[in-house]
Amino acid sequence: MAKDNQFVSQIADIEADFPQWYTDVVLKTQLVDYGPVKGTMVIRPYGYAIWENIQREMDARFKAAGVQNAYFPLLIPMSFMTKEAEHVEGFAPEVAVVTHAGGAKLEEPLVVRPTSETIIGHMYGKWVESWRDLPLRLNQWCNVMRWEKTTRPFLRTSEFLWQEGHSVYATAEEAEAETLRMLALYREFAQNVLCMPVLTGRKTEKEKFAGAEATYGMEAMMQDGKSLQSGTTHYMGQNFAKAFGIRFTGKDGALQYGYTMSYGVSTRLIGALIMTHGDARGLVLPPPVAPVQVVIVPIAAKKEGVLEACDALAAQLKAAGMRVTVDASDNSPGWKFNEWEMKGVPVRIELGPRDIEAGKFVAVRRDGTEKKEYALSSAAETVKTLLDSLSSDLFARAQARMAERTVNAGTLPELLYGVNSGYFIRAGWCGERACEDKVKEFAQATARVIDETNDMPVCVCCGKKAKHTVFFARAY
Amino acid sequence: MAKDNQFVSQIADIEADFPQWYTDVVLKTQLVDYGPVKGTMVIRPYGYAIWENIQREMDARFKAAGVQNAYFPLLIPMSFMTKEAEHVEGFAPEVAVVTHAGGAKLEEPLVVRPTSETIIGHMYGKWVESWRDLPLRLNQWCNVMRWEKTTRPFLRTSEFLWQEGHSVYATAEEAEAETLRMLALYREFAQNVLCMPVLTGRKTEKEKFAGAEATYGMEAMMQDGKSLQSGTTHYMGQNFAKAFGIRFTGKDGALQYGYTMSYGVSTRLIGALIMTHGDARGLVLPPPVAPVQVVIVPIAAKKEGVLEACDALAAQLKAAGMRVTVDASDNSPGWKFNEWEMKGVPVRIELGPRDIEAGKFVAVRRDGTEKKEYALSSAAETVKTLLDSLSSDLFARAQARMAERTVNAGTLPELLYGVNSGYFIRAGWCGERACEDKVKEFAQATARVIDETNDMPVCVCCGKKAKHTVFFARAY
Repeated sequence: MAKDNQFVSQIADIEADFPQWYTDVVLKTQLVDYGPVKGTMVIRPYGYAIWENIQREMDARFKAAGVQNAYFPLLIPMSFMTKEAEHVEGFAPEVAVVTHAGGAKLEEPLVVRPTSETIIGHMYGKWVESWRDLPLRLNQWCNVMRWEKTTRPFLRTSEFLWQEGHSVYATAEEAEAETLRMLALYREFAQNVLCMPVLTGRKTEKEKFAGAEATYGMEAMMQDGKSLQSGTTHYMGQNFAKAFGIRFTGKDGALQYGYTMSYGVSTRLIGALIMTHGDARGLVLPPPVAPVQVVIVPIAAKKEGVLEACDALAAQLKAAGMRVTVDASDNSPGWKFNEWEMKGVPVRIELGPRDIEAGKFVAVRRDGTEKKEYALSSAAETVKTLLDSLSSDLFARAQARMAERTVNAGTLPELLYGVNSGYFIRAGWCGERACEDKVKEFAQATARVIDETNDMPVCVCCGKKAKHTVFFARAY
Repeated sequence: MAKDNQFVSQIADIEADFPQWYTDVVLKTQLVDYGPVKGTMVIRPYGYAIWENIQREMDARFKAAGVQNAYFPLLIPMSFMTKEAEHVEGFAPEVAVVTHAGGAKLEEPLVVRPTSETIIGHMYGKWVESWRDLPLRLNQWCNVMRWEKTTRPFLRTSEFLWQEGHSVYATAEEAEAETLRMLALYREFAQNVLCMPVLTGRKTEKEKFAGAEATYGMEAMMQDGKSLQSGTTHYMGQNFAKAFGIRFTGKDGALQYGYTMSYGVSTRLIGALIMTHGDARGLVLPPPVAPVQVVIVPIAAKKEGVLEACDALAAQLKAAGMRVTVDASDNSPGWKFNEWEMKGVPVRIELGPRDIEAGKFVAVRRDGTEKKEYALSSAAETVKTLLDSLSSDLFARAQARMAERTVNAGTLPELLYGVNSGYFIRAGWCGERACEDKVKEFAQATARVIDETNDMPVCVCCGKKAKHTVFFARAY
C-alpha cells in the first residue's frame, strides 16, 4: 500500500509502529508542534483550522439546543476547589498554581482551571434565585490545564482547548435527561461530522468524574484497537449545588437546591479522527472538518489557460460551499500529489491542457487510487458527491472495523487474549470494584462504558452473577 | 430625556456621573459580572454574544487578508520574558506567575501570557528557515492576563480576551507596511462594525509597546471626552527576531534576521462601543454587533392570532438575515419596552390585533421615540433600512461629537481648560519627553497619537519649534 516516496519515508509504518506513525503524522503535516514547556503543544494553522471547523459545527448544535455561550475567569481561588470533597481529591494532584502576581505573593493561591465546575458553581449560586431563572444552560470555549506526566499532542497535553457546558435544573429528572441528551448530541456529532462511530454509555464508579453522581462517556476505537475517550457528560445531582449554594425558590415558595450537570469535548477529538481514519500515506481527513476539502493540481501549469481554468474550477466549487485550494507552486505534480495525500485532503483534482480541451477533469478520492474523468460542466455536483461518498465510506469502514473487532469474553484469559489482539471486549461484571481492578491489573484493560444490553450471565473476573455487561479495552 | 421608570431608576444619570452610569449599565443589562478574584470579570451571555459578533467580523477580515489562526501555549518560561530587555521591563510588574504544578515546585517559574511576542518569537525562530517561509502571518484568539491595580469591566481587567496577530517579513518595509495595513483594517472595522469614529496614528516613544520600534494606536472619544485606546499595531524591527533567533536564508543565500510586527484588539472594544453610543436609558448597540437586532413585542398577546403573527414576522426577518426575538413573556408591553431599551436593541416592533388587521406594524429605532407604521408586506426591507440608517446615524453622531469636541491649543492653560471641558486637544510638541511628562503632570493628559497633519508651529509646553502635532487627551 505504501508508496515509495519522500513523504511516506518520513512516516513510520502504521502497521509496525502505530504510536510513532501518529507522532510523525501530526508533526510532519504541521498540525501541531511541541511547545517550549514540557507537555504543551502549539496548534499550527492546519491543525487549528480543523478545530475551528469542529467548533463551528458543535457550536451550531449547542445554539440550536438553546445553550448560550459565556466566559468565566481562568483563575480559581484554591478554596473553591476544596468545597466539593471528591472534586478536589480528583483534581488537586494535577493543577498548576499561581502564587505570585503583580510583583507580590498572593494571599490565596489561585488554580489555573482544570475544569470550571467550581467557579461556575460560585457564579450560579449568585445568579440563581427563583424557579424562573431555571434551567440555566451556559457553555464556554476555553483553555484548561491539567499537569500530566505523560503527554502526547492532542491526546494528553498539560494545556488543551475545549468546550465545557454547565447547566442547572430544578429537578433531578431534567438534569439527568440533559446529561443523556448531550451525550446523544456528541454521538451524532462524532458520526456525522467526524465520520467516527462511537460507543456511548454510563461509566463505572471508578471511572466517573470527580464529584459526579454519574458520568457518561463516548469512546472511539483507534486503529490499534485501543479506546479513546472522546467526550463525557456528567450528572452531578446536588453535590455542586450544595457546595456553592445554588438555591432557588420553587413555584411552591420553598427554597431548594438545584441539580447540575456538565459536558465537554476537547482538541482530543483531533487525535481521535487522525487515529480513526489515517493510513500508511498519512492523514485522511473527514470532509466535514477538512481545512482543504479539494486540492486542484494543474498539469503542465505553464501552458496557456491551465492556471486560469484551475482558478475558474476552484471558484465554481467555492461558490457551491466547498473549501478549495489550487496548488500553483513550483513543485512537480507528483510531489504535490504526495504532499496533499499526506495532508489528508479528501479529493484531489488534476487539470491539464488535454482535460480542458475535452471539457473534463480527473479526480481521485483520498482513500482510493483509481483516477476517474468527469465532465467540467457538472463539476460542483460531482465533487460534492465524491466528498459525501467519502464521508459515508469512512464512517462505514470504521464502523465495520469496530464491529469486527468487538468480541465477547467469558474469562480473564479470553479477555486478555482479546485486548492483546486489539479488540474491544464485551464481558459480564459483578459490579464490584475489586473485579474491575483485577481486570486492569491482569489485562491493562479498563471498563470503558456499560452496555445497555445486559446479556452476559457471569462476571468475567469472579464468575459470580453479572450485574452489567461492560465494554473493556485498553485506552489512551 | 430620562424616563421615570424602574429601569432608568436603576441607572445613574449619564450626565452627572458617567463612570457610575457605565458600571450600572454593564451590570444591569447582564453584559458582565465581577469574578471572585479581584479584577476579574465573568462575561455573561449577552456580553459574550457581542464578542462573538466582533470575533466573526474581525476574523473574516483577517482571513480575507491572508492571515491564518493558530494557538500558542498560555504559560511562558520566565527566561523568555527577559530575552528582550524593554519587553520584560514593561511587562514584568504585571505578570501572574505559576510556581507550582502537578504537586511540585517548578524548576523555572512560568508566566501566564500578558501577550505572546516571546513564545511566538521562540516558535518562529524554530520554524523560519528560508525566504520561502516568509511572510509568516498568524493570529490567535485567546485569553491574556495583566495584573492591574485599578480595574473596570471590559476596560481594564486582570484577565481579558483578545486577538493577537504576529507576522515576520523579510524586509523592514514590508513589516512596516503590514503595521499600517492592520491599523487601517482596525479603523475600517471600528467605523463599519462598531459605528465608531476613531483617530489613528503613531504613538510617541513614551506611549509605545515595550520592545517595539513604533506603535500605532486607534483612539476613540468616549462621551465624557476621555480617550479609549481601542487597538494597537506594533512594528518591532529586528528586536524580537534577534532575541529569539528568527533568521532566514535569503534569495541571495545569506542568513539574516527577519522583521516582526504584531497587532491586537480586545474585549475592551465592548467598553468602547458602550461609552460611545449609550444614553440615559442604557445601552445603544450598533446593529452589526447587537446580539438581538430586532425585538418584537406583541400587543394584546392573548388575542387570537397575535403571537402567531409575531412569530411569522420574526421568521420573515430572520430569513432576511436579521437577529430577532419575540418577547412572549408575561410582562406588560411597557415593561418590555423599557427592558429592551435598556438592553440597547436597535429596533423595536410592536404588533397587535389592529395592526395585523390593517396589515401594518409599528417600529421605533432605539435612538428615537417617534413610532411609525409600516406595511407588513415589505417588513424585511423596511427593518433592514431602519437598522442601516441607525448604523450610519450612530456613526455620524459620534463623528460630529468628536469633531466638535476637538480643538487646537497653543498653551498649557488652554490645553488644561480643554481637557477639563471634555475635549481632545490638538497641540504642537517639540518631541521632548520632558514636555510630554509636563503636559501629563499639569493636565493629566497624555499624547494619544501623532497627527498626520503637522500644522501647529510651537510646542504647547516649552514654546520651542514643534516637531509634531499631537492629539492630547485624558485617557482610560
